[in-house]
Amino acid sequence: MSKLVREIVVLRYGHRDVRDYRVTSHCALVARAFGAKEIIVCGDTDESMKKSVDDITERWGGPFKVSFEEDWKTAFAKLKKKGFVFAHLTMYGEILIKKEKTLSKKQKICVIIGSQKVEREVYDKVDYNVSVTSQPHSEIAALAVFLDRIQKGKELEKKFKKSKLRIVPQEKGKRVINLNSLGGRK
Amino acid sequence: MSKLVREIVVLRYGHRDVRDYRVTSHCALVARAFGAKEIIVCGDTDESMKKSVDDITERWGGPFKVSFEEDWKTAFAKLKKKGFVFAHLTMYGEILIKKEKTLSKKQKICVIIGSQKVEREVYDKVDYNVSVTSQPHSEIAALAVFLDRIQKGKELEKKFKKSKLRIVPQEKGKRVINLNSLGGRK
Repeated sequence: MSKLVREIVVLRYGHRDVRDYRVTSHCALVARAFGAKEIIVCGDTDESMKKSVDDITERWGGPFKVSFEEDWKTAFAKLKKKGFVFAHLTMYGEILIKKEKTLSKKQKICVIIGSQKVEREVYDKVDYNVSVTSQPHSEIAALAVFLDRIQKGKELEKKFKKSKLRIVPQEKGKRVINLNSLGGRK
Repeated sequence: MSKLVREIVVLRYGHRDVRDYRVTSHCALVARAFGAKEIIVCGDTDESMKKSVDDITERWGGPFKVSFEEDWKTAFAKLKKKGFVFAHLTMYGEILIKKEKTLSKKQKICVIIGSQKVEREVYDKVDYNVSVTSQPHSEIAALAVFLDRIQKGKELEKKFKKSKLRIVPQEKGKRVINLNSLGGRK
């Protein structure tokens, strides 16, 4: 078996309070569901967004953390020191399918996703600028497909820790197990 | 070479004007970028959302269509008559990696994605309820990963017709070719 990425952090560039609430929430939930351990939101601090994501982590399991950093460069410097490799998702970057093999071998990856226009310095400082299609679409979609491909789909069956709820996949309808009533699951 | 899905339509269940503007726009752009030929938005008619997506299709190519249908059942019946198979994306459904091989062989697929709570009848009427992870996240992300997997990544290099702009992938920075000044591209 080939080694897979061990630690993934998502850096959300340029969050604006209220305006970006829903889209950044989607980014955070995708980061969590697709195996990242943290999203660092750069821009406005948005406690209500954090709370809604933390509530999901509380119920559906983790570990997952939402944190804030005013300036992306501070977050970048800290992660760089810890040995993270940086991949910035942009429609202008190199084609994902040409880079995913290399990226899937990295131990620690920080994925940068923008909202408003991303400044030139991001393009210059990162190790990879990667495009998930060379078409305009959605940073939420780009993040999900990127994480799915660099982890080769392994994340789709990830088990979360300390979850209170767990779904049992069904052909029709919904089935959710409340693990609390079973004494919790570690 | 194995045969791949030929025709993909996305059905967005339950769009609310203003409130869902950004998320439905993302869904539409993902549908386009990942190879669907149309998104049918069920719920409120939202001309400003349609316009912003049409503008992108105008510049970046197509074919891609945004249409509206008040009641999802009308859209469902029309597509059923044309031989479409229906896959509803829901965290409660069967695991994608167990279904993608079967789905990738279908000729015509309609992918249903919800926003607000989806009524029971959708679960019952569709051919497949499919989960992209059994975790709560984003219909935008679920749509992208679903389309990527059932098309085996072929859509990532899709060529669009009648585009005015085209990106040349770069390691750093941005390069866009204006095809109009080259006499256009068919």
